[in-house]
Amino acid sequence: MPLTFAQRLDNVETSAIRELFKLLGKPGIISFAGGFPDSAMFDVQGISAAVNTALQTEPGAALQYGATEGFQPLREQLSAFMAQKGAKDVAPDQLIVTTGSQQALDLLGKTLVDPGSKAIVEGPTFLATIQCFRLYGADLVSAPVDGDGVQVDKLEQLIVEHRPRFIYLIPTFGNPSGAMLSLERRKRVLELAVKYQTLIIEDDPYGDLYFDAPPPPSLLALTAEVPGSRDWLVHCGSLSKVLSPGLRVGWMVAPAALLAKATMCKQFSDAHTSTFAQATAAQYLADGHMPATLARVRQVYGQRARTMTDALRSELGDAIDFVAPQGGLFVWARLTGAGGKLKDGAELAKRAIEQGVAFVPGAPFYCANPDLSTLRLSFATVGDDKIREGIGRLARALG
Amino acid sequence: MPLTFAQRLDNVETSAIRELFKLLGKPGIISFAGGFPDSAMFDVQGISAAVNTALQTEPGAALQYGATEGFQPLREQLSAFMAQKGAKDVAPDQLIVTTGSQQALDLLGKTLVDPGSKAIVEGPTFLATIQCFRLYGADLVSAPVDGDGVQVDKLEQLIVEHRPRFIYLIPTFGNPSGAMLSLERRKRVLELAVKYQTLIIEDDPYGDLYFDAPPPPSLLALTAEVPGSRDWLVHCGSLSKVLSPGLRVGWMVAPAALLAKATMCKQFSDAHTSTFAQATAAQYLADGHMPATLARVRQVYGQRARTMTDALRSELGDAIDFVAPQGGLFVWARLTGAGGKLKDGAELAKRAIEQGVAFVPGAPFYCANPDLSTLRLSFATVGDDKIREGIGRLARALG
Repeated sequence: MPLTFAQRLDNVETSAIRELFKLLGKPGIISFAGGFPDSAMFDVQGISAAVNTALQTEPGAALQYGATEGFQPLREQLSAFMAQKGAKDVAPDQLIVTTGSQQALDLLGKTLVDPGSKAIVEGPTFLATIQCFRLYGADLVSAPVDGDGVQVDKLEQLIVEHRPRFIYLIPTFGNPSGAMLSLERRKRVLELAVKYQTLIIEDDPYGDLYFDAPPPPSLLALTAEVPGSRDWLVHCGSLSKVLSPGLRVGWMVAPAALLAKATMCKQFSDAHTSTFAQATAAQYLADGHMPATLARVRQVYGQRARTMTDALRSELGDAIDFVAPQGGLFVWARLTGAGGKLKDGAELAKRAIEQGVAFVPGAPFYCANPDLSTLRLSFATVGDDKIREGIGRLARALG
Repeated sequence: MPLTFAQRLDNVETSAIRELFKLLGKPGIISFAGGFPDSAMFDVQGISAAVNTALQTEPGAALQYGATEGFQPLREQLSAFMAQKGAKDVAPDQLIVTTGSQQALDLLGKTLVDPGSKAIVEGPTFLATIQCFRLYGADLVSAPVDGDGVQVDKLEQLIVEHRPRFIYLIPTFGNPSGAMLSLERRKRVLELAVKYQTLIIEDDPYGDLYFDAPPPPSLLALTAEVPGSRDWLVHCGSLSKVLSPGLRVGWMVAPAALLAKATMCKQFSDAHTSTFAQATAAQYLADGHMPATLARVRQVYGQRARTMTDALRSELGDAIDFVAPQGGLFVWARLTGAGGKLKDGAELAKRAIEQGVAFVPGAPFYCANPDLSTLRLSFATVGDDKIREGIGRLARALG
């Protein structure tokens, strides 16, 4: 007799992307497929100093069980970190620390989603969000995105039509679209939240990774300008893209009633986030290293992004269309089919592997109606010369 | 309009124990209420050395995203760690690393429990297990325990009656009962698993904390003696009680099909356990510190357990009944009512706080039919003199 599994597992399948990743071990391949920061950018020295200070000054706290809500000195540092970015009124007890922001998504699914609950996400959006919410039975609705982020008129129509339990957005340099929601649309989104009393989840792991000018303030910061909107906003932050994913330190700001429910659920999910990692992150922030670290990653990723977009234009010409990203880790592009060339992203991904370059086709990032011509290319982990070489290979794969 | 929460939240309530814990800040209180190891026992020097080595030799791995299944060097160390304790045939890829063993429970709930699914747990059992499984809708059935652990004849009756999706046991020095399942009963449990093709979950965070003779082999180790039983066994391990809870490093051994489903779920729960913590734990184990650390905690906790049981006998006499623990962190006791004294654990807990001593009443540890006369007393974090003083206060509270 086989084991009986829970029915919720029928809602998801192992990611199509995972199969592609198995091919990445091929020698000499240049990979634009990743969704992670460059290990070479990690401030190993600063993190080492932080963990040693934490273990010397408060070993009991760093190694013992901690509060489910999070290590208090880290909550204070994160409150201050957000204040520096314009969200000035988030007290430490208005956030909980999560095991990466992935856990924030899981806790939101657990607290908010019943089988059949409607929720709106961007099309395209983060693949693990789609899977995470579907595992709890969510019925996801896709809202269209352009170069300025989610299209708010369409979003309003979808809210009226579906009355979703929440709307999940990555407003700033989102994965995979790289799009930046305009200031005007940000305010409209918050107004819609209040008008329709609908929860907005702002996932913001990339907002610090801007290349030139800072992006508009986060939805969280803008709640100060839209009366009542703070009651309908959840904000998920993360140190993964700016400091280290291996720490698994994220956080979530939410209305008090929701934060209490999420905390109860977290108690039974993993009791608390590693205090060892939390105390290290708190010390790192307290040591004041973050501004220099951010300046460095912005400079390097900005340079790589320009190298990639320049190479795409010169090598692929009008066969590809994209909006140059202003931050984040990704170029999101569309095959135009110009000159009778290939328009299918998945097919191009296969041919590209043969040419020694990898990227992720865009279709899996849609919860419905995928655009099969799309590609996600990450420039974050590849040096400039290799980027040019890789895009050359991509051009050859396109033929 | 208030937020709409998922219906699964109606299955649980914030722990009664949490309310008690709020009282523990009272100055001068002696607390036997905790369920955690003594911070003073942490090997801060060994852990510091391990994290520094990990950051020097493989910073990329320690700080980057990692495989959902776990950091491979840690999986290898954990395989070797289990082999030393008699489970010799667990390959590294037959386990996944979890964010504390609490996450293993959550993943088991997510993969195995549909609303209304039956599952058998010990009465009493770990409180967070009850809540964790109920959050997924489990209908829990309580199997009675005596000084030799779960009563296997009763367990068989309950399996036949309820055909549960799984049976969850803490066979060795369980929380809260402290009981040690006898060797004979261990084999019977595995035979029942095969006979009824029913999954057994062995939660084993305390097995290393024996005071004199080692306990019988784990169910995992004993699967080698009961043909077919390995296909029906899940084993959850943890470094929390023996090394540091703050690392949040646990692991789960399970049949391949279940392990694959749990891995998929973990991908959407927290992507992976902190590689920073995993690399540190792997290095600590590789450095060979664990045997000395275990010897030290066994000696200290054994001494404290004897001090507590001696004091209970001399101070409370026949008003209290218990089986002296042979390992773990807890004395599980029953008020007898002898001499007309109080028999209600919750009432005694209130009076005890007034006398300056805290413990946890036993009733919340039952998923059904609580024994109201029970108490859980942890000796782990209190020195010998304070244990004697605290038990004296408890005797005064009992009147």
